[in-house]
Amino acid sequence: MNTIFFDKKPRIISTGTIAGPKECAGVIGKYVDKTLVDDMFGESTYEKAECKMLSYAITKAIENAGMTEKDMDLLISGDLLNQIISASFAARDFDFPFLGVYGACSTMAESMAVAAAFVNASYYKNIVVATGSHFSTAERQYRYPLELGCTRPPQAQWTVTGAGGCVIAPKGSHIAITSATIGKVVDYGITDVNNMGAAMAPSCASSLLEHLKDTGREANYYDLIVTGDLGALGSRILKDLTWEKGCDIANNHVDCGEIIYNVIEDEYQGGSGAGCSATVVNSYLMDKLKRRELNKILFVATGALLSTVSSGQGESIPCISHAVAIENI
Amino acid sequence: MNTIFFDKKPRIISTGTIAGPKECAGVIGKYVDKTLVDDMFGESTYEKAECKMLSYAITKAIENAGMTEKDMDLLISGDLLNQIISASFAARDFDFPFLGVYGACSTMAESMAVAAAFVNASYYKNIVVATGSHFSTAERQYRYPLELGCTRPPQAQWTVTGAGGCVIAPKGSHIAITSATIGKVVDYGITDVNNMGAAMAPSCASSLLEHLKDTGREANYYDLIVTGDLGALGSRILKDLTWEKGCDIANNHVDCGEIIYNVIEDEYQGGSGAGCSATVVNSYLMDKLKRRELNKILFVATGALLSTVSSGQGESIPCISHAVAIENI
Repeated sequence: MNTIFFDKKPRIISTGTIAGPKECAGVIGKYVDKTLVDDMFGESTYEKAECKMLSYAITKAIENAGMTEKDMDLLISGDLLNQIISASFAARDFDFPFLGVYGACSTMAESMAVAAAFVNASYYKNIVVATGSHFSTAERQYRYPLELGCTRPPQAQWTVTGAGGCVIAPKGSHIAITSATIGKVVDYGITDVNNMGAAMAPSCASSLLEHLKDTGREANYYDLIVTGDLGALGSRILKDLTWEKGCDIANNHVDCGEIIYNVIEDEYQGGSGAGCSATVVNSYLMDKLKRRELNKILFVATGALLSTVSSGQGESIPCISHAVAIENI
Repeated sequence: MNTIFFDKKPRIISTGTIAGPKECAGVIGKYVDKTLVDDMFGESTYEKAECKMLSYAITKAIENAGMTEKDMDLLISGDLLNQIISASFAARDFDFPFLGVYGACSTMAESMAVAAAFVNASYYKNIVVATGSHFSTAERQYRYPLELGCTRPPQAQWTVTGAGGCVIAPKGSHIAITSATIGKVVDYGITDVNNMGAAMAPSCASSLLEHLKDTGREANYYDLIVTGDLGALGSRILKDLTWEKGCDIANNHVDCGEIIYNVIEDEYQGGSGAGCSATVVNSYLMDKLKRRELNKILFVATGALLSTVSSGQGESIPCISHAVAIENI
């Protein structure tokens, strides 16, 4: 049993989101708290801009909960930068404890799961969770210097510039986290660092199927199975992999990476990055939950656990996915 | 209140440790499960050796608990490498869920705290936690290429080559985790990346004092307040900082970094790295707890949350410390 059931049903009482101009041209544009005109966000480096976005998402989530920093008991956060510096430096701005996590692009679901577990056990009352990413920091850390202007292959995704977070508390909303499935590391031997969708889809299928088995639910129990961020190709692979196991998600599955962009430039398979599902789930989808247009979603965030060093040493890409059930009650 | 109290008193039922030849020449040599003769551990790169050590510590902790992989419910792990690849790649070897955390050298205490919280709430039964580090991977990732043979300044520490872990379960031993204090990020503006002790001491003082306040205990409640890894200089600073606040730890404080080496070469202030406190606590100190030579220890692991990028961009070093109370019951 890899699933934790939350009998006290911790609530998501508020969200805070921010995204770049390219991201806000798409589906999340109407829902985020702040749209950046300039992705430098007034800072001198992209890394500092990423950190500032994360700090903004945390502050905004607290503010939207009608609370102040004093009401917060814990921050759970992580990001894609080496040594999760965005999260750590953002945490420096706040006078409450910080738990750093790393799950690559699965960080949002991982943070939500741990926060819900802590609130459900009454260890802490109000926990703010957040993550984010920035196209330019990810590109220059994981791939090539931006100035090189490298051509991107068609299986590539585009790292989302954005951050999102939410406050999880014992009560205060009708949106609850009812269970969470912590994923196993799955590695199908993919070595193409430009094809994250293919690398991550098997781990996503693993956690999704594990969740359904543990909860005794069929896939159609959920109004929506939201993955993030497999991209268009990864989403197709996930559908195939689950279908092979007798689980049909063709009608109730969307991927945050697939839906975030109006693909007009070279975003190809769609969005990626920890900020992708963090912004889509905490803005667009949370709005639908609030309005009860959706009532039961399973959020399966997917992460590729590679580094430039592991790839440089010829390793394949181990991946992990964590699933969080979010339901209106 | 930043402290979580564990009413069910989750137990540490076994440990697994491994360390390099230099480390085993010191105090932990008699207590570790395996001493490496060659710090490559039969691998082709230092990074792969680090991952293999971590995998060994996990396997050994499970084995020493008289259990098998099938009995394990969760692995909580992290390390110092970019994107915590040692932990993620080690997790690939095991068929149970994985929660990746990052707290730099505070990872052991962070993992223990989360594991104890999960076991105490009956979410999972048997959780294995582990972390490690390797001198050569840390040196070439954080500092300079090894081949350069850079001179080290006297305030520097030496990254420990080693890994340690333990199994945390509801029962099965007299060693319990009774509470945990999650730290805040503290930054006193230190920018010298060779002086981690000075950077981390204020965060260590903060978490230690917070723990004593939350629990209503005096420092002398504990037989030993074990920090890791401040080094000799950092340990002095911690004593001063706590003494200023009316808390005297002169007689019951040791630092894992300070005690791990027989300083004969250029280890200077002593050991550092996530593997430092992981090996010292899980071998030498756990043995003393088992024999009841020590009965109450407070383990305050300290982490410097910098990256080469943050330092390169002129940032100071934010630090965090998490405290875990380990008591014989």
